[in-house]
Formats: sequence, C-alpha cells, structure tokens
Amino acid sequence: MIRWIAVIAMTATGVAIAEPPQRSPVPMTDLLKASPASDWRALEPENVMYVDLPAGRVVIELAPGYAPVNVAAVRALVRAGYFDGSFVVRAQDNYVVQWARLEEDERAKAMAGKTLKAEFARPIDSRLSFMRLGYPDTYAPEVGFSAGFRVARDPKRHRTWLVHCYGSVGVGRDNAADSGNGSELYAVIGHSPRTLDRNVTIVGRVVQGIELLSIMPRGTGTLGFYEKPSERIPIRSVRMMADVPSGERIDLEALSTESATFKALVESRANRREEWFKERAGRIDVCNVPLPVRVKSQDRGATANAR
Amino acid sequence: MIRWIAVIAMTATGVAIAEPPQRSPVPMTDLLKASPASDWRALEPENVMYVDLPAGRVVIELAPGYAPVNVAAVRALVRAGYFDGSFVVRAQDNYVVQWARLEEDERAKAMAGKTLKAEFARPIDSRLSFMRLGYPDTYAPEVGFSAGFRVARDPKRHRTWLVHCYGSVGVGRDNAADSGNGSELYAVIGHSPRTLDRNVTIVGRVVQGIELLSIMPRGTGTLGFYEKPSERIPIRSVRMMADVPSGERIDLEALSTESATFKALVESRANRREEWFKERAGRIDVCNVPLPVRVKSQDRGATANAR
Repeated sequence: MIRWIAVIAMTATGVAIAEPPQRSPVPMTDLLKASPASDWRALEPENVMYVDLPAGRVVIELAPGYAPVNVAAVRALVRAGYFDGSFVVRAQDNYVVQWARLEEDERAKAMAGKTLKAEFARPIDSRLSFMRLGYPDTYAPEVGFSAGFRVARDPKRHRTWLVHCYGSVGVGRDNAADSGNGSELYAVIGHSPRTLDRNVTIVGRVVQGIELLSIMPRGTGTLGFYEKPSERIPIRSVRMMADVPSGERIDLEALSTESATFKALVESRANRREEWFKERAGRIDVCNVPLPVRVKSQDRGATANAR
Repeated sequence: MIRWIAVIAMTATGVAIAEPPQRSPVPMTDLLKASPASDWRALEPENVMYVDLPAGRVVIELAPGYAPVNVAAVRALVRAGYFDGSFVVRAQDNYVVQWARLEEDERAKAMAGKTLKAEFARPIDSRLSFMRLGYPDTYAPEVGFSAGFRVARDPKRHRTWLVHCYGSVGVGRDNAADSGNGSELYAVIGHSPRTLDRNVTIVGRVVQGIELLSIMPRGTGTLGFYEKPSERIPIRSVRMMADVPSGERIDLEALSTESATFKALVESRANRREEWFKERAGRIDVCNVPLPVRVKSQDRGATANAR
C-alpha cells in the first residue's frame, strides 16, 4: 500500500496534476466543479508572457496594476525580441532561477535601458481590489489577494505590494533601487523569500509550467550561477500571448480572487476536512493558498488539483 | 552587468554554495567565521542517514527527541537494508519527493511493520531546548528552534512539534494516524506545507544534498507519482552514518541553535544590512532562518552561504 501524504493537494501555480484518490472527500475539487463560469476570468493576452524552453512553455501573468512601468518595460523588451536567444543563467536551490542575455551579448544588451523606476510597493488604491486573509502573517500587517495576485498591505503607511511566493517573477537589480532594467528576470522556486518583499519589483507570477524551471540543475557558481556555458538552458523565445497566433495559444482562465468560490476555497484550505487530516490548521499562509488556473477548453472537473 | 537578486543567501540546508561577491558586506559570513568552535556540534552518527543516489548523497539528520519511536523504526529499517533497492517513486512540484520499496516487492515489504505510533506532536519538556523566535507565525502560537530543528509550541495545550519546512523529512501514512510504518519517507521540496504540521510524523531534515531531490523530474501521475517504472529514481543504498567506514563519511557539524552565534545570525537575517536591501523586514519566518551546516575539515570561511 502506498502511503500518501496529504491526499489533496495543488501546485503553487494551480495547474491540474490529477484527481486525488476516490476514497477521500475533495472539497476544493467540488468547489471548483460547482463554480459558476462567472467566477473565472480569462487571462488578458497583453499581460501574459510565454517563455518557450526546449522542455515546454512557462506562462507568466504580469501585474500592471502593481508595477506598470516595469511591466511596460518587460513587455517592450519581449516585443523587441530581447529575450529570444537568452538563457537561464542561474538556478539556486530553494530560491530562484534567473534568465538573461549573456554578458558578452553587447548588441542585445544595448536594447535595454540602464535604469528603471523601482516599483517595490505602491500606494493603497481603492481601485485595486483587496480580499484580506484574516490570519497572522510574519512579515506584513495585512496580506491577501488582489486581482489574482498575492499581496500585502501596511495601512499605516498606506502602502501595498506584491509578495514573494513560489512562482513569483521579479526584476533582478544591482544595489541601486532603480538598477533593474527588466532585462534580467527571476522566478521563485523555493520557500517564499519574503525578505525580498519591498526590495525588488515583482512583475507577475508563473501560472503554468513552473515545474519546468524548478527542476533545472542547480548552478555551482556564486548564487547558483552556471559556471560553464554548456550548463545554461537556452530560451527559444519569449512572446506576449497577444502576439501569438491563436493556434499556438493556451487559453487559460483563472479563478477570480474576488469570487465567492475563491473565498470558500480559502476557508476550505485553512480547514482541511479530508479524512486524512487529524488536526485542522484553522489558518493558512498567503503563499499556501492555491490560485487555480485552468485551460478553458478542458474538462472543468480536471482542474482541481492536489497538494 | 549581472543583476543579482539578494546578494547574500543560504541554502535551506545550510550547505555552502559559494562566496558572495566582494562588494557586499556579509554579516552572516562574518558571524560564522568569527564563531568559536564550541558553537558547533558534530552530528551524531546514530542519528544521521546517508541516502546514496546515482547523482550523489543526501544526508538526513534524525530527531529522536521529537519522534523517538519513528526514528527507531526508520533506523531499524535502514539497518535491515530495507531501503537498498528502493526508489524515489514520487516528485510533486512545490511539495515533496517520496521514496519507498515498490508495491510488488512483497518480501521486502514484509520487513516493515503494519502500524507505528503517531508522533505528530509531543508534550513540552524542559529537557528539550527551545530558542523562541519572537515574530508572529501564521500557524502556531510560538515557533523557534530546538537542538538543530525548527519547532512550534502551543503552551496552552502544552504541546510542541517539528514544523514542515523545505528539507523536512516525514513518514508517509494512509488515513489512519498510526498507518505510517517508516517505510515510505518524504522530503519537502517546496514552500513549507505547514498544514501538514501535527498531522504526520516528522523524523528529521535534510542537512546536505536536498538539491539532488529537488531537481527530480515531477511525476505526471496522481500526486506526482511516476507513472512509468523507468521514471523512478533508484536508491543505491541507505545507511546510518554510524555503520559507514570513516573514509566514506562526511563529517558534518551544525551550528548549535542554542549558541550565541545562532542568536546573532537570526537577528542578522531578520534585519539584512547589506547595501542591496532597502527595506529591512525586521522579522523572519521560522522556515527562512538558515541552519548552517559545514564539513569539519573544510576551510571554515567557506561555510557562509548565500540566498
């Protein structure tokens, strides 16, 4: 007999793995199956990046509501073909993978600016939705969800920001706050490095394909950089979904974090009722709340996932 | 120019990656370099498991103070050769890898018991050290460190338990609390699944080599199980360090979580002073606190690590 641990589960990015065993009740699956279509939102093609690797596609949703200048810069670099011919140059265990053009690639490098506005946090704005998660957080006075992203807020300072969780995508920078120009991006592949919050601009999150990044061999150089050129993983192309012919698109939709289904999902995940669980946590960390994403055309029952 | 994110870093398991760039101050490195030898403890060979994979060795420290019955059962299975010829059978992204003997391997399977006492939590005991981390935690009234492990406590219920962080090793079980027999172990390779806390027996943590597990291809079956036999990763041998000839041992020592150096390290990591950081968190999550481990014979300066 195989002993499961945690019979019900979900990938960080919310993409379906498989149905859990029949013997256990599956509240999240049921919630998603029963959800009205109106609780889902199609991803906006102007805000979706396809990173095509030899092993497959990584889909990143950008967050212009939180980092408009950086998102615009990244989008412009994508459209200029900047990342075509770039490489994953760094994979540091329990931390990040990072991709960039090579140092010696001066002509390409010249396409990117020298500096870019730091958008580490922004003023709280009533036009940005906020569904508060009412449990204590180590790092911020308030945490929750906003338009599909995990966020934190400090009402006293009137600031809000995207938080670092598994799958978060940010703009690498040097010591100066404005030294990230959007040309070197990283994705989190480990325990959420929340110490980075408000220190670096997050531009989005991986909504599909994070497992293509998280299994990359760890670099043996400083900070996980690959030491040998042959170790770098080539990136075939990076495109905005809006620029991709419909036949090559993946039509994803995300559960709206403003929906009643999402509120029920949070409660369900904070209080796991499956027979396997003997002690309900009664709470949940913002990075552990699944943000379900599914392919529109797929059987909707298949989108409930496991962790 | 390569843009770093988070110039100073550390693996979850505390094993050195490399020196950070010279241009940044390195408080943790300095702390470790300046630490007296008495702040370090040698790992106890009776409590260390070597899991030898084709790609290298994973070193696990067991925690008999928190799970004496389960640790004894695992140790007995190791000594009986139970895991030699086992396989990594499951790799679920942002969650766990799990290893076991195969279902059809009935003769081996018969070596393991049917049930084992659940040691999900234990009474608080003044003989077990506790260095409290004074920051809010989502899941527990108190969190901190005890004899090299990350723990939580509930003083009202007089209970304490090992918490699930990156690298934690636990005993897979079926729905019954006592159905884990020690023959199927998992290691956490993603954001800490703290919902599992007090639901499953943690027996230890990976102190070296977690990156050999975390890069394993994710299984495409239910819960990340490998669907094809050829996908399973063979385990050459699992041995207790005490049974391994000295020439084949790795003599690791761990920074004592009771030491003054460790207290200073926690403060340093909660308040990053490197030039790169613009906003100090002023706090740190229990799973983000590094637990430094180093090879005794190595240059001690090389043990300060990066994340």
